[in-house]
Amino acid sequence: MILLGSTGSIGLNTLEICRRFQIPVEALVAGNNLELLQEQIDEFQPGIVAIADPARIPEIRHPRVYGGEEGILKLLEESASDLVVNALVGFAGLAPTLKAQELGRRLALANKESLVIAGAFLERERIVPIDSEHFGLWYLMNGRPFRRLVITASGGAFRDRELSEIPTATFAEALRHPNWSMGNKITIDSATMVNKLFELLEARWLFGTPAVDAVIERRSIVHALVEFADGSTTAHLAGVDMKLPIATALECPVEEPILPPVDLLEIGPIAFEAIDPERYPLWELRRILLERPRLGVVLNAANEAAMAPFRRGESDFGTMTRRILETFRAFEEREPATLGEALELDSKVRKHCGEF
Amino acid sequence: MILLGSTGSIGLNTLEICRRFQIPVEALVAGNNLELLQEQIDEFQPGIVAIADPARIPEIRHPRVYGGEEGILKLLEESASDLVVNALVGFAGLAPTLKAQELGRRLALANKESLVIAGAFLERERIVPIDSEHFGLWYLMNGRPFRRLVITASGGAFRDRELSEIPTATFAEALRHPNWSMGNKITIDSATMVNKLFELLEARWLFGTPAVDAVIERRSIVHALVEFADGSTTAHLAGVDMKLPIATALECPVEEPILPPVDLLEIGPIAFEAIDPERYPLWELRRILLERPRLGVVLNAANEAAMAPFRRGESDFGTMTRRILETFRAFEEREPATLGEALELDSKVRKHCGEF
Repeated sequence: MILLGSTGSIGLNTLEICRRFQIPVEALVAGNNLELLQEQIDEFQPGIVAIADPARIPEIRHPRVYGGEEGILKLLEESASDLVVNALVGFAGLAPTLKAQELGRRLALANKESLVIAGAFLERERIVPIDSEHFGLWYLMNGRPFRRLVITASGGAFRDRELSEIPTATFAEALRHPNWSMGNKITIDSATMVNKLFELLEARWLFGTPAVDAVIERRSIVHALVEFADGSTTAHLAGVDMKLPIATALECPVEEPILPPVDLLEIGPIAFEAIDPERYPLWELRRILLERPRLGVVLNAANEAAMAPFRRGESDFGTMTRRILETFRAFEEREPATLGEALELDSKVRKHCGEF
Repeated sequence: MILLGSTGSIGLNTLEICRRFQIPVEALVAGNNLELLQEQIDEFQPGIVAIADPARIPEIRHPRVYGGEEGILKLLEESASDLVVNALVGFAGLAPTLKAQELGRRLALANKESLVIAGAFLERERIVPIDSEHFGLWYLMNGRPFRRLVITASGGAFRDRELSEIPTATFAEALRHPNWSMGNKITIDSATMVNKLFELLEARWLFGTPAVDAVIERRSIVHALVEFADGSTTAHLAGVDMKLPIATALECPVEEPILPPVDLLEIGPIAFEAIDPERYPLWELRRILLERPRLGVVLNAANEAAMAPFRRGESDFGTMTRRILETFRAFEEREPATLGEALELDSKVRKHCGEF
């Protein structure tokens, strides 16, 4: 198995599964947490390693370490494992996804942006999502005809904040996720609902349908629901833990307990709420995105570009949201026809967004 | 299709499905609502008919009407359809179930008592349950390894009554089901939790496992849950309407909407509660029943025998419950080894219960 992004939360969970089921790790890729990467190298003895910054290669005790984006692509070329777990964050995950597909590898994809940006140009049959929501949908579908797929959202950091206070909120405030701790980017994407827009697009590509929607479920116990053609609805409930989708992507034995089951008598009431477009103004983009899913590249680029100044404290939450929305609107007629056009559009959107 | 019990709520729903999908009805069996039966005969033109009381045969305008239990068995013998929908109530449903199996027919079984009394002696592969809970379990299982099946209970008429007032409650009070209107017997069985004990036994026989439990879900939106080996839990949600299990048992096209889906944003909070043995003293029998499921015959006989005086106003709710419990305890060592023994035990239990 090849693991891209081994020191993040998905990476750690993946290695826990590898440890438990004795899955050999051929290659590890990490960003800047080199101390943790070294521990992982010592334990899992991968044949090849790559890190984000080529300058820091000498810090790693391993005979074969590559650096930078090219280093990751080289690592993919020179490794043999059929399965690539891509848990890189943001746009940086796209090139390795494309390379893995070019090499005919299977992808376990935690990098949502790959599908959001380039879903139309990927071989979706060779992709398994590592995501509670899509895992839940897959678990429920079972080949029955359905009318609608529904994923749930926690509501993010501002789900209960006074509406008037949200626009002036800071980066630190947007990081206070009510349910769990994740990476910074995805936590901000939760507060804006961009994460859920991404997941609608993922579902669109993975399951080949625009009939996808989301609702808020505050406890994050139900992750996905499927409304079947006959009138049945089924729901997937599980603890918030990525080991379940990871173990499935890694084809671990399904009769093994990966997580303890939720305790039905302890979880308390479960309720579904609409996602209010007043609180989450970007949510209004869901219709056009599902109609023109190739515009995912625009949303992603606008989101990454507008988040940078917010992260640095140079803009507030409302400004970031407004920039994403206005940028998207400026490009919403420009659906890319090819991967090349999509990448070109990505640059243009970032440039446009940077000009605010 | 052959329909036993055409004028009850399951029967009416079955005929609605037959009407919609143009399923021919070869034979109809009804109890005492002969006016409604006549309308059904006029509409569906069955080749054979049977009614409970042989003396009333002349009241029916049809060339081939049989009467009494033997009449039903004769109707089964003389008909040709592969599928028998058995929606008769109580012990009376058993003989037709046995006859249908003897004739090699497929059974769509709404008569729970058949499985409760004789589950060990039936060919379970030829039986499809017509029951929201078991339909839900079947819908969810999909061949994955599971650790526990969970069905839900509404809690019945006394779920919110002061504990001290329950023992003196009357038949009329026990009929006030909080969620819906069903036949009298099943409504009383809901208040005592006997209905849920029956359903545990049904699941035990249908799915071949003692790992079955129940929880209270007051809104009756979730009907069943499956806890899978990997730690996933899935739930089946649907409107309270038997047309969904009936349409499936009748092998109607699954891409047709049988019911409207539940509206996730309108259903309100869903919560699961434990079944409190103080409120439902018969619930303590679940362990021994799942351990020795052939004792279902004892529970059913005690229940039918103790319910008769309660129905006539000769005993109160507490007395009925106590008689069922004490009778069961008196016979709990006597697991029947054969169908003959089970039927013999049935008579003994009824006699014992009648002697209070």
